[in-house]
Amino acid sequence: MTQDPAPSLADALARAAGSIEMCLDALLPLPAGPEARLLTAMRYAVLGGGKRLRGFLVMEGASLFGVSETCAARVAASVEMLHAYSLVHDDLPAMDDDDLRRGKPSTHKAFDEATAILAGDALQARAFEVLAEPDTHSDPQARSELVAALGAASGARGMAGGQMIDMLAAGRTLDATEVTRLQSLKTGRLIQYSAEAGAILGRAGSHQRHQLAAYGRDLGAAFQIADDLLDAEGTAEETGKRTGKDEAAGKATLVSILGAERARAQAAMLASQAALHLDSFGPRADRLRDLATYVVERRS
Amino acid sequence: MTQDPAPSLADALARAAGSIEMCLDALLPLPAGPEARLLTAMRYAVLGGGKRLRGFLVMEGASLFGVSETCAARVAASVEMLHAYSLVHDDLPAMDDDDLRRGKPSTHKAFDEATAILAGDALQARAFEVLAEPDTHSDPQARSELVAALGAASGARGMAGGQMIDMLAAGRTLDATEVTRLQSLKTGRLIQYSAEAGAILGRAGSHQRHQLAAYGRDLGAAFQIADDLLDAEGTAEETGKRTGKDEAAGKATLVSILGAERARAQAAMLASQAALHLDSFGPRADRLRDLATYVVERRS
Repeated sequence: MTQDPAPSLADALARAAGSIEMCLDALLPLPAGPEARLLTAMRYAVLGGGKRLRGFLVMEGASLFGVSETCAARVAASVEMLHAYSLVHDDLPAMDDDDLRRGKPSTHKAFDEATAILAGDALQARAFEVLAEPDTHSDPQARSELVAALGAASGARGMAGGQMIDMLAAGRTLDATEVTRLQSLKTGRLIQYSAEAGAILGRAGSHQRHQLAAYGRDLGAAFQIADDLLDAEGTAEETGKRTGKDEAAGKATLVSILGAERARAQAAMLASQAALHLDSFGPRADRLRDLATYVVERRS
Repeated sequence: MTQDPAPSLADALARAAGSIEMCLDALLPLPAGPEARLLTAMRYAVLGGGKRLRGFLVMEGASLFGVSETCAARVAASVEMLHAYSLVHDDLPAMDDDDLRRGKPSTHKAFDEATAILAGDALQARAFEVLAEPDTHSDPQARSELVAALGAASGARGMAGGQMIDMLAAGRTLDATEVTRLQSLKTGRLIQYSAEAGAILGRAGSHQRHQLAAYGRDLGAAFQIADDLLDAEGTAEETGKRTGKDEAAGKATLVSILGAERARAQAAMLASQAALHLDSFGPRADRLRDLATYVVERRS
């Protein structure tokens, strides 16, 4: 089993991460006043870290429709800001109480709790603002759709709702159906949005948009199981975050419910299923297919 | 000095508050799953409370351009969700640590901290989502402008930046210029946005849009001084929140810097100035003029 992405995928991931980083840097300039501390914390939370899986999905999806890389990078940066805000808030003492993130102190440890709460809030606001700005797309209809879909994916019926279920689950045991639903909200919806955003940017027809959304949904589910396997089996050194958290917190995952072997098979099945949704896109979608393989085989 | 709004203003305020309440109720339905707790907390934070000053500004501004009340109420509800999220997060122990809000326990006391953080996050997401949905305006250009302007008003260079400066100010003394800037970010920008949103909804020309924005800016500044006067001189019974907070926290306000009398004169001057920006709107803007008088004379 390979642990590194295929060379062409590795190149594309690195290139996308570079574009997204530059875009984020430009979108979050430091102001002169005392509020510079807030921007410093926002930049700390979002720059220089992570695989940029979500941003990569936006950029690869958009490339299927010939969308300019500049526009796609702005949407990718928005999704990464949204994702980063959720990590900053999830790491807070009142939530998952996590001191380590991407191999460095989490934002509330590097700054303080108040700054971390505000940095998360302001990253969310900036994510929506960037989507709505004319530079993101010449057609305001596309911009509005990007905003509305991100709101739905990240709000009470998406990511935030999933995190609420996760908080409530501490101390009781969820079954496989409940865990699957929790994860599809908590992480799946934003990954699905990321894949779908390329189709929105490309003004794709509803069939292609649904295909990309379905790809994102299955990819997200596979990704989450792989993440839980890494938490159960990986080391903090490999993953850049504390591992063994789920077991320590008594949190049910598909790994704890099904066992590692069946969970791994389930992830592989979902990854194959994700790739099948891309059939109508032909070889242009090969990197997205490689990505589906990679997310379940990665070691970090 | 009158303490109640003029009868026609009181009627309009009550009518707008009723429309906004109904709209919020419809925009935040309870789901069936365990995430219902999150929606319950969001509804607790935003329903049934507050003067709806911001929402009223949206609706009155929109009425100057003949915008349908249904569309205006959605934008008003969005602004109130955004405002409510900021109160929920500001009240957290790591921020202002406030147990009382609008005469009842603040959200983290009525629920718990994790739920309050998530409820604030999800209210923010829903605010942007609602603005971007087609029901808010038939023209996606207007919807995108509403989103981008709200992002700018509430993010790191607006409301969240102001709250950051406020947190940093604890323990040192700001001068009048610094206090004015802090407040223009922390509360002024969202009040300005609320006034301006009516012009965006009405596809007004840039002159009228700027006039409403200028009105909102001066009104917001006057409102804040009046708020600080109430904190210094009012009782919790009158205001529905803990008073004397600024002095106890050693926070400089224009009241502590200028003294109550000069601060009151400054608020009255700003309120008159706000009304002057409305000259080109004629008598249709009388309620907005009355509002400028009311915000500096209210007792709660």
